[in-house]
Amino acid sequence: MEEFLHFIGRNCSQHMIPLTNTIRINPERLWSRIMEMAQFGATPAGGCNRQALTDADKAGRDLFIRWCREAGCDIRIDEIGNIFARRPGGEPDLPPVITGSHLDTQPSGGKFDGIYGVLAGLELVETLNDAGVTTRHPLEIVVWTNEEGCRFDTAMMGSAVWSSAMDLDAAYALVDCDGLSVQDELRRTGYRGSRTTTDISVHAAFELHIEQGPVLEDEGKAIGVVTGVQHMSRHRIVILGVEAHAGPTPMALRKDPMMALSIFLPQLYALAAEYGPEGRVTFGFIQVEPGSPNTVPGCLELTVDIRHPNAGNYQAMLERYRECVRAACDSLGLSVEMACVWEAPGVVFDSGCIDAVRQAVETLGYSSRDIVSGAGHDACNISAVAPTSMIFVPCENGLSHNEAEAITPEQAETGANVLLLAVLEKVGITG
Amino acid sequence: MEEFLHFIGRNCSQHMIPLTNTIRINPERLWSRIMEMAQFGATPAGGCNRQALTDADKAGRDLFIRWCREAGCDIRIDEIGNIFARRPGGEPDLPPVITGSHLDTQPSGGKFDGIYGVLAGLELVETLNDAGVTTRHPLEIVVWTNEEGCRFDTAMMGSAVWSSAMDLDAAYALVDCDGLSVQDELRRTGYRGSRTTTDISVHAAFELHIEQGPVLEDEGKAIGVVTGVQHMSRHRIVILGVEAHAGPTPMALRKDPMMALSIFLPQLYALAAEYGPEGRVTFGFIQVEPGSPNTVPGCLELTVDIRHPNAGNYQAMLERYRECVRAACDSLGLSVEMACVWEAPGVVFDSGCIDAVRQAVETLGYSSRDIVSGAGHDACNISAVAPTSMIFVPCENGLSHNEAEAITPEQAETGANVLLLAVLEKVGITG
Repeated sequence: MEEFLHFIGRNCSQHMIPLTNTIRINPERLWSRIMEMAQFGATPAGGCNRQALTDADKAGRDLFIRWCREAGCDIRIDEIGNIFARRPGGEPDLPPVITGSHLDTQPSGGKFDGIYGVLAGLELVETLNDAGVTTRHPLEIVVWTNEEGCRFDTAMMGSAVWSSAMDLDAAYALVDCDGLSVQDELRRTGYRGSRTTTDISVHAAFELHIEQGPVLEDEGKAIGVVTGVQHMSRHRIVILGVEAHAGPTPMALRKDPMMALSIFLPQLYALAAEYGPEGRVTFGFIQVEPGSPNTVPGCLELTVDIRHPNAGNYQAMLERYRECVRAACDSLGLSVEMACVWEAPGVVFDSGCIDAVRQAVETLGYSSRDIVSGAGHDACNISAVAPTSMIFVPCENGLSHNEAEAITPEQAETGANVLLLAVLEKVGITG
Repeated sequence: MEEFLHFIGRNCSQHMIPLTNTIRINPERLWSRIMEMAQFGATPAGGCNRQALTDADKAGRDLFIRWCREAGCDIRIDEIGNIFARRPGGEPDLPPVITGSHLDTQPSGGKFDGIYGVLAGLELVETLNDAGVTTRHPLEIVVWTNEEGCRFDTAMMGSAVWSSAMDLDAAYALVDCDGLSVQDELRRTGYRGSRTTTDISVHAAFELHIEQGPVLEDEGKAIGVVTGVQHMSRHRIVILGVEAHAGPTPMALRKDPMMALSIFLPQLYALAAEYGPEGRVTFGFIQVEPGSPNTVPGCLELTVDIRHPNAGNYQAMLERYRECVRAACDSLGLSVEMACVWEAPGVVFDSGCIDAVRQAVETLGYSSRDIVSGAGHDACNISAVAPTSMIFVPCENGLSHNEAEAITPEQAETGANVLLLAVLEKVGITG
């Protein structure tokens, strides 16, 4: 194994103890920094409201940069506000290994989604400093701007601009509900940097994150080795019927959109089961007009979120979904409009990065399982331009985007040590 | 046939022509009054917004009273604002035959719902005057206060107070969305009368109304002989699940209220079919929380309106409805609350009044069918204290509570003539 050939420079090489057997992060330092960061935008219920480019987000970013400078990192900020904190490597011409996530939260978000991955990256720098290790590649901790997409309605915005999936000007032009633009708020907070966002050369990338789902907890696994991200899309269905009085109108004379729902709803749940256990359908929004209890609705609107990690199965699910809804409406003489309002193609992570994570888990002796992320992450954008993978730790009851979001200090430690060994594998040791 | 023994006093008795063969309403006068009344609260789309005890309602009532006085009627107003316009009979001690409906409308109501029945009653008085007929019983045209229950949230309020189904003080205390009470608005408009609402002695009652459904039009029938009103109730279902991210949460680990809906929704439509063609279920309101397209809802709320004209079948439907919803939620480990928020027992109209309508239809040679009203009407309250039935005419596309509500002048004439002959049967002729 390659990493068994790495030793801690002059001191440890005398004892021939592999670095991966001895080097570990400082769990108290990591945890206390997570708790300190959580004070910015803290909510009474114990969560965080630290939306992108607000004063609270600026305060969190400022603190992060101070910590990074104290740890000896060079700070660069690009035009969309992504922060790159570099621990120099022994071979300056080599591209960096990057790790990180985001510091912004949902309006009623938690302490860990994003933040954990950023501060675990900083903890790696501190750990390498403590151990006196010089790496071959530089190591960069990255804070991506506006991952949540709640204040400015494009999730994973900073990483999208960086990876050229989104135009810089389009990102600048996004406005919040008060009409404030990303560009204005970057200037106001002092986070519109000068480094071009197209300056990309990355040796490998890792993102450590809470699972945001219940699978690892349910199976009692300490680590999720993330092999990719689901194909996913969001669809809007509008079915038009005819409003009618609930009493005098016989069932056979109705044009009732809810009747169509009664046909295709069970079919779509059956579809998810047929493509299970990985196929997923979610009906997160539904309403009828006029919404009066004694009136047959004239209009039904709902959304369907469809996901599957396998491209072929995902496409088959999309096709069957459209057939089911169309056939149900046709059978009742109802007109229907279906529109795909958002789609994110699935991602298959880099096998080398996945292997590095798998090996780290094995070295540390943790339980794990391969897992496909059901949610999008900055790593999706990064993977388009650099070898990338992710590491998941369980979160309590699978809850996320919720003030009750929780992980234990032990879970935080476990994930950060896996990140450390995976990064060490890619960053290389010179002394 | 009893009515063939009635003749028009001294003039016609010489020719031995039965009154029912000759007497007919004046369709132009009826139609022009309907159109004139529609000017109060007229909406740009051709409907009416003349909610109970508004200035527009007062103006309509004032005009109605002027017309009635011009037609020789005595006007009395009771404590809840119901208007009784009496054409005296030849035998003053006999109780009146009453006919009428309401003048108030929905906020986006039509020209005919209620109004048609009131003005057809007035047209009967005019027709009897024109023919010089003296009836044995007095004939009263009644305008019931606040039938719609939209401004003040109790439908059929005036007839409910009159028939002692509702306390007068409870009706007085009802307030609109601006906090104005029924009592205040009765005073303000001058329609808080002094006649006690418990002064009830009625020989027979008829209400002529548009069908508010599509059955007569669909079958090409001119008249609906209304034999009763459906049993009906409204139910609120709240199902609690657990919010979860649409991506990372496998279907098997979800607590998704929409899954329960996918089970019981088709079952309840099948239930209506099983108890068809008269059984009815309507899902007029539905919403999920938090209503985010990529979040499995934590809460589903919907309403179910259940109706059937047969008491036994209605009860069986209620029982099966509860079983279906309960079983679906139990099978998924979801908690559910079901509440009946409103129930109106069915009504079987008086066989003598029904026969009078049936005979009138036969005499006039109109096509007809027996029909059970799917909607509640003032006649439901009246029938608790007096022999009562109703007459329906078709309305265009079955539309009602809608600015597009429409009947033709011919349909208006047809229904009013049926009402005339049915009333004549009950009111008796002295000369």
